[in-house]
Amino acid sequence: MRPRLTARHTGTAVIAMIAAACGAACVAGCAAPAMARPAAPPSAPATLLDNVHGETIDAQGQVEAVSGLLFDQTGTILQVFHPGDKLPKKGFAYHVDGQGRVILPGLIDSHVHVMGLGLAALSLDLSDTHSLAEALDQIRAFAAAHPDRAWIVGRGWNQEAWGLKDSTGASRFPTAAELDAALGDRPVWLERVDGHAGWANSAALKAAGITAGTKAPAGGTIPHRADGSPEGVLVDAAMDLMTPHLPPPRGADRDAALAKAQSLLFARGLTAVADMGTSIEDWQAFRRAGDANTLYVRIMAYAMGIDQMALIAGSAPTPWLYQDRLRMGGVKLFMDGALGSRGAWLKAPYADAPATRGLPQMNDTRLGNLMSRAAMDGFQVAVHAIGDAANAAVLHTVDDLSATYKGDRRWRLEHAQVIDAADMPLVGRNGVIASMQPTHQTSDRLMAEARLGPGRLAGAYAWQSVLKAGGRLAFGSDAPVERPDPFAGIAAAISREGPDGQPAGGWQPQEKVSRAAALAAYTTGGAWAGFAQNRFGRLAPGLRADFVLVDTDPMTASPQAIAKTRVFETWVGGGKVWPDDQAAPETGNQNRG
Amino acid sequence: MRPRLTARHTGTAVIAMIAAACGAACVAGCAAPAMARPAAPPSAPATLLDNVHGETIDAQGQVEAVSGLLFDQTGTILQVFHPGDKLPKKGFAYHVDGQGRVILPGLIDSHVHVMGLGLAALSLDLSDTHSLAEALDQIRAFAAAHPDRAWIVGRGWNQEAWGLKDSTGASRFPTAAELDAALGDRPVWLERVDGHAGWANSAALKAAGITAGTKAPAGGTIPHRADGSPEGVLVDAAMDLMTPHLPPPRGADRDAALAKAQSLLFARGLTAVADMGTSIEDWQAFRRAGDANTLYVRIMAYAMGIDQMALIAGSAPTPWLYQDRLRMGGVKLFMDGALGSRGAWLKAPYADAPATRGLPQMNDTRLGNLMSRAAMDGFQVAVHAIGDAANAAVLHTVDDLSATYKGDRRWRLEHAQVIDAADMPLVGRNGVIASMQPTHQTSDRLMAEARLGPGRLAGAYAWQSVLKAGGRLAFGSDAPVERPDPFAGIAAAISREGPDGQPAGGWQPQEKVSRAAALAAYTTGGAWAGFAQNRFGRLAPGLRADFVLVDTDPMTASPQAIAKTRVFETWVGGGKVWPDDQAAPETGNQNRG
Repeated sequence: MRPRLTARHTGTAVIAMIAAACGAACVAGCAAPAMARPAAPPSAPATLLDNVHGETIDAQGQVEAVSGLLFDQTGTILQVFHPGDKLPKKGFAYHVDGQGRVILPGLIDSHVHVMGLGLAALSLDLSDTHSLAEALDQIRAFAAAHPDRAWIVGRGWNQEAWGLKDSTGASRFPTAAELDAALGDRPVWLERVDGHAGWANSAALKAAGITAGTKAPAGGTIPHRADGSPEGVLVDAAMDLMTPHLPPPRGADRDAALAKAQSLLFARGLTAVADMGTSIEDWQAFRRAGDANTLYVRIMAYAMGIDQMALIAGSAPTPWLYQDRLRMGGVKLFMDGALGSRGAWLKAPYADAPATRGLPQMNDTRLGNLMSRAAMDGFQVAVHAIGDAANAAVLHTVDDLSATYKGDRRWRLEHAQVIDAADMPLVGRNGVIASMQPTHQTSDRLMAEARLGPGRLAGAYAWQSVLKAGGRLAFGSDAPVERPDPFAGIAAAISREGPDGQPAGGWQPQEKVSRAAALAAYTTGGAWAGFAQNRFGRLAPGLRADFVLVDTDPMTASPQAIAKTRVFETWVGGGKVWPDDQAAPETGNQNRG
Repeated sequence: MRPRLTARHTGTAVIAMIAAACGAACVAGCAAPAMARPAAPPSAPATLLDNVHGETIDAQGQVEAVSGLLFDQTGTILQVFHPGDKLPKKGFAYHVDGQGRVILPGLIDSHVHVMGLGLAALSLDLSDTHSLAEALDQIRAFAAAHPDRAWIVGRGWNQEAWGLKDSTGASRFPTAAELDAALGDRPVWLERVDGHAGWANSAALKAAGITAGTKAPAGGTIPHRADGSPEGVLVDAAMDLMTPHLPPPRGADRDAALAKAQSLLFARGLTAVADMGTSIEDWQAFRRAGDANTLYVRIMAYAMGIDQMALIAGSAPTPWLYQDRLRMGGVKLFMDGALGSRGAWLKAPYADAPATRGLPQMNDTRLGNLMSRAAMDGFQVAVHAIGDAANAAVLHTVDDLSATYKGDRRWRLEHAQVIDAADMPLVGRNGVIASMQPTHQTSDRLMAEARLGPGRLAGAYAWQSVLKAGGRLAFGSDAPVERPDPFAGIAAAISREGPDGQPAGGWQPQEKVSRAAALAAYTTGGAWAGFAQNRFGRLAPGLRADFVLVDTDPMTASPQAIAKTRVFETWVGGGKVWPDDQAAPETGNQNRG
């Protein structure tokens, strides 16, 4: 991710030139003489991209065919060309031959955990394991490969994927004893794939002082044996008993994680993200990258709770920083947990656990108070709501608050996974945005059927119902919960079939969305959800030159082909940020001037 | 402090132009189109300042006479003119007539608490009270003027200045009962002038749960009555029992405090400061101002302890941000307290309290560990040391660490108020910088004589001895402990007489420094102490155009006249930042183009 100032005419060089032009280099602390470095005058050399075909969503939400782009050195689009347009022969200094590839606007993931994604990529990842035995092997191998780490920390396990069952044949969590057998000498803490449960070995439980006498905090549970001793998994709020004991990442770890996260996002064509739950530590890492001119991805940050919001941004959202690459515009709140760990708050009991309806993270009064505290200072509010009871609570609170906090608030429901048909009309009011993750539907299908039973499936992952109700969609991945892959997301959104094509015709197929709606939810919808619709998300004059060159046109290809889309190049603000030609010379550099 | 983009050719307008030229406006989040705003090419209109006479300290530490300046729109000095030089007739677009005033480099205060200064200016200030009764009157009046404040918080009291004595005639602290008589219905918390003790009323003690049963934490004391009940004052670390209960300033309060602090600094000719003990809340306020292009003063930030250092800057000092207006380059540690509250750690007992030698805030091993933790990541270390035992501990630790952490470390002793002659040679080794406050000497004289007795006065505020030993001086005010007034400081430094001229000839006069040494300690010495010597602190080509126009030449005027210096204008980076012509139109605007 390092800028390559020497590589003239490469995208990254263009970024460096933009930095010089707009002073990022100065702001990043160059010596006084360099300050005088002149910026590009308006007549600065422009870049023409041609020999491409593809599309953008236009300001009216319609698909608009694109055949070329002209953008300047400040990273702003000057002109968009359409099929049949005559392309200019001069008026530009650099020419990029698109080689007949498909062009799309840079894609936007409206729900990621940037630091979580980067740190997870640098830690133990069990998301590809298909059995407990396979997971234990990976844990052993990782521990052996990292003898220096005092704790072994990882994530991604899913007992459903392992088919883990108890003696009665019911799904069960793994245990500390099973983990001890693989690694007993060091504490081990492994978060579930959805981040709503953690699996500890005995050394970790000991380090956290969790015993038979430990009571689970409100909003959490500690599954235990008959004798009351913890089995090894801590659910939702009970995870807070462990996390304070983990060795925190150092600043250098976070900087490395951010660089890693950016390359993972760019590799799948993502140029902007909403970071859902930004801590002050995350924010400082974002700023360090911005100050060092190594922040390329656009981050729309939502603070992890009110206190972090006030600490980071003070009494109002921050301005857009680093040429529209960073802004703290809102706050993330949690109304409930997740379906997988049965922390999601349902109106009726879980079909596969009739004793529980899950639980709310707070009551309606507190939710209203926290939302007011943010809204009165002009911050946007994004609330995690998965169960139908949680979604109802948030939607009714938004309806109440909208009388007081008028104007364009863009209240966000994060996940909005299960919505009661009775509450769906509220999604169409008060400008509510449903920030949803298409691949959650394909990944969770069987689990969701088990948890919800047949009666509630009509309101599950109900994208089309949201649109019909007049709600706005912003699609994302919830990475690192799912891979940050907008093409897999588009495929799921238009087919409701898994990567295996199952179930043929799609699960609850009435909730499929059109190809145009899916692309919009990953571009203009995401920009709207972050108050960025005038900055990026479309290919249009005056907006940022964020685009990708790929091999598959999502308007025409099969869902399976779309999911396998190859990303050739990712450009942000008129600069190519992926692939890193130095890191991957074999990919070649296609944009000679 | 708001930029006035409309006021063409005024200094503030120049700042705005610089911002545009170097992209601060972009970084502060202007809309995409504005991004293309062209910067000043190298041939940009320059500004000529003439009809001035004064001096700067040159690179060799010598006094260099100055008769004019040429600087460009990026805020960089192009040329310095000397008496007799022929001034250019063209090659500049703007002309500023200095009207025969005295020019000096922008002055640097090497030890301030920026947020403390601003917040204090917006809170109850008792530093001008001369009796307990006068203080109680002011407390009553302030509380009446602020009925909305749940707590009454202030600072600046000094029982010495009140001549407060107990029945035996010994100096004593004020009591909670005395405060209750003035204000009993709301909690009151008032910090002593040196910030090393706090005075609470009964309501505040109750809110903090401080009773006869409360034990003072290590490093602190709770003076109490015979029955063990607290008298009302908490000393040093005991203050930490109260501070968590104070209502914290909100972001908007901090933003207002920073603006207030900047105007107070500029009004006395200060253009750069070392912020000694920056918290994450302080840092975020600095960044908000930088992002909004309202940070004009140059802040060299030293984090309040290792944890804040790592949180703010990560694994290395930050770059210089906002065109050399902000950098986190080091950490502030505390070895002891202050003389006034007898928290300073002495080798021998206090002359006026033979039962105590004060106390260290940590042992030598911990000091070495904390200094190593900072130094291994390249951070500068500044340690508060006032008593001779504290200074000895820091100097010996620096001597030990210098073998491991080689190179240009610029270890800083903050205050260095009492140094044993036996330790003075260490000040000349390892590049130690003594960051001292001349007006502490004149303010503390009688108190210091009482605390130290005659035997230790030779090593007290021993500026000349520091220079003789080969140490470097950086002068400051410790504002808000003292007013941030470099001219009062220069006067004290060259005379060791108080504003009243007492004692005639100076107290311990052998420790006076030359006028040149005093000016250097407030300019080049402060820049060196902050690794900024190639950015500001002198009037020289390539450095920032930071300067002041005043009515008194510190090289020739009497100490009393210097202390009364009138500041006409303060310029930072080629832009006039004080006076604010809109706020104070009667001062006129002297720099028409």
